[in-house]
Amino acid sequence: MFESVRVIGMGRAGSTIAGRLRERGLEVGTGKDTIADADLVILAVPDSAIKEVAQAVPIGPWVAHVSGATSLSALDPHQRRFSVHPLQTLSRDRGPEQLDGAWGAVTAGSPAAHDRATWLAATLGLEPFDLADADKPLYHAGAAMASNFLVTLYRTAAGLLETSHAPPEALVPLMRRTIENGFALTGPIARGDWSTVEAHLHALRERAPEVEPLYRALAEATRP
Amino acid sequence: MFESVRVIGMGRAGSTIAGRLRERGLEVGTGKDTIADADLVILAVPDSAIKEVAQAVPIGPWVAHVSGATSLSALDPHQRRFSVHPLQTLSRDRGPEQLDGAWGAVTAGSPAAHDRATWLAATLGLEPFDLADADKPLYHAGAAMASNFLVTLYRTAAGLLETSHAPPEALVPLMRRTIENGFALTGPIARGDWSTVEAHLHALRERAPEVEPLYRALAEATRP
Repeated sequence: MFESVRVIGMGRAGSTIAGRLRERGLEVGTGKDTIADADLVILAVPDSAIKEVAQAVPIGPWVAHVSGATSLSALDPHQRRFSVHPLQTLSRDRGPEQLDGAWGAVTAGSPAAHDRATWLAATLGLEPFDLADADKPLYHAGAAMASNFLVTLYRTAAGLLETSHAPPEALVPLMRRTIENGFALTGPIARGDWSTVEAHLHALRERAPEVEPLYRALAEATRP
Repeated sequence: MFESVRVIGMGRAGSTIAGRLRERGLEVGTGKDTIADADLVILAVPDSAIKEVAQAVPIGPWVAHVSGATSLSALDPHQRRFSVHPLQTLSRDRGPEQLDGAWGAVTAGSPAAHDRATWLAATLGLEPFDLADADKPLYHAGAAMASNFLVTLYRTAAGLLETSHAPPEALVPLMRRTIENGFALTGPIARGDWSTVEAHLHALRERAPEVEPLYRALAEATRP
């Protein structure tokens, strides 16, 4: 489908994508070692920079971005365009293998673009699924809740364990198993044990009042 | 330390604990097949029932409960008493092996009780840690946030993906990796990309307004 790819932006996403495409045998140009005549240009730049960088790319090759929230229109004036969003949190401490097992949101405005986007997602090692351009912001809000706010949940809960002189890392097997058990709800709210919920709120008010509003918002969203 | 144990309450916790103690070669009595002269009685009943059930147990054997939020005083009038809280979400579809790798909160009012509580936690396969009686409600609020509200986070995010016609199960590799990566924060808030956060809020207001308050509370708690 594509044989030579230029990747612009060497942050977490760009370097992971470039590494994976090289593993797959493609000619990949990045930074100073760029390719003038690449047949695909991938913009792995911050969302707010996509529009400006796209305008600076000469018309001709296919152009793609990898943002989950950004419309294809940010790639104007290019019409041979698509986006693939790797639905994964990327670490500089890992290599291209961190894409394995993750899903990839494919957005395209034509059958030709869809074929190419699906090819790129699969070549990266992602499980492709279709995402309409207009659905991207809501989809990305869900992705951010699942990953970024999971961090917030852990940090907040870990702070409560620290204040209780209990080891925060004890939460990790609990959280892993919650996922492994298919997110089955257990605990006081599942049991309808409101006196324990009241005991939590009382303890929070006394010893961690900054956490109380978040606890209440989450408890409210958890009630059946 | 103990050779015969009576377990009262055959819910998730009681049946898992009884199964594990049998695996370890102890004589375990449950339900009708109970032991009159057990040297340890474990109350695995709902938190609100512990006090009443404890009062009905004749004075003599050691008595323990397995609640994370409940004080030892609920075991009155017994003085040979302690608690061990398995910090794990338990499923009826799993056996005693689900205790492996989890931590166990040990609460005891005397050195003799502490020895016995630590022995029970280790015999169950838990990694024991000490938890003061007065710290239990705050500790348990943290445990409930980490597990129960993780379910809420997934369900809410999955709903947003469904509304976006994206597969909710695509969130699972993302959430697993967020834990594996040590809860490192990535995404728009980590990047200071507030226009993407605004795009999320705009999409939520239009298509999932019931989620907006929770998103705002979590975003507020995530800001550096």
